[in-house]
Amino acid sequence: MSQSLMQLALDQANEAYEAGEVPVGAVIVNDQGEVIAAARNRVIELKDATAHAEILAIRAGGEKLGSERLTDCDLYVTLEPCTMCAGAISFARLRRVYFGCSDPKGGGVDHGACFFQQATCHHRPEVYGGISEVEAAEMLKRFFKEKRD
Amino acid sequence: MSQSLMQLALDQANEAYEAGEVPVGAVIVNDQGEVIAAARNRVIELKDATAHAEILAIRAGGEKLGSERLTDCDLYVTLEPCTMCAGAISFARLRRVYFGCSDPKGGGVDHGACFFQQATCHHRPEVYGGISEVEAAEMLKRFFKEKRD
Repeated sequence: MSQSLMQLALDQANEAYEAGEVPVGAVIVNDQGEVIAAARNRVIELKDATAHAEILAIRAGGEKLGSERLTDCDLYVTLEPCTMCAGAISFARLRRVYFGCSDPKGGGVDHGACFFQQATCHHRPEVYGGISEVEAAEMLKRFFKEKRD
Repeated sequence: MSQSLMQLALDQANEAYEAGEVPVGAVIVNDQGEVIAAARNRVIELKDATAHAEILAIRAGGEKLGSERLTDCDLYVTLEPCTMCAGAISFARLRRVYFGCSDPKGGGVDHGACFFQQATCHHRPEVYGGISEVEAAEMLKRFFKEKRD
């Protein structure tokens, strides 16, 4: 686990925040620790309900590696992936997922569908949560508070 | 429910078959029954693990309508959506899902995660399965048999 890679994901989340998008960022690294993709939430900008940080990073990673399978690659993401993204992570064969704060309302890894624990999940990454979770959670809380105010 | 719209989805699935992709096709229509997006599985072609027919149709529909929310739109898809696609369908606020054959091994609607039944699912479409299921299933069976032979 690399704190500096989670910082890169947090930088992406901050860019989303500045752009008025739900602040979530993601980075994918290969087994040499080289960044092959970095992305942030762009749902509103792209008018695309699927444009979560993880999905955009997986798509960029596939383009970079020339394969839909990101074998031996790891994902850093500031928020627990939702069910859609958990499915995408499994299809992309990502090796490990490091995430920031938990998402009891919308998470699909440790909550709700708990997708990686389902018999219909055919590739299970290793998962490590709680990485830089205070910073990741604070940014999300600030974003939603400003939305309400 | 329109049989001819499912036929359009089957035509898309057939194009996927001819291209060597898992034969699944999808169509999205607005509440006037006008087709706003049609797509097929392109995972291998696009080197993109997320390039399922439903995801590509949702992205194209958002572009067409200028919004990430496809409110009052319906999806026709030849196979029970997987967990990733079920998540995307919910985020896109699709009104109804008509699908062809069931997918006990990889489905995320009636199997495994059963995403629309989770408390973490915040928009539930109406779902109708078994539309043109024999034709949809036969194409998939033929595809996987040829893969094995």
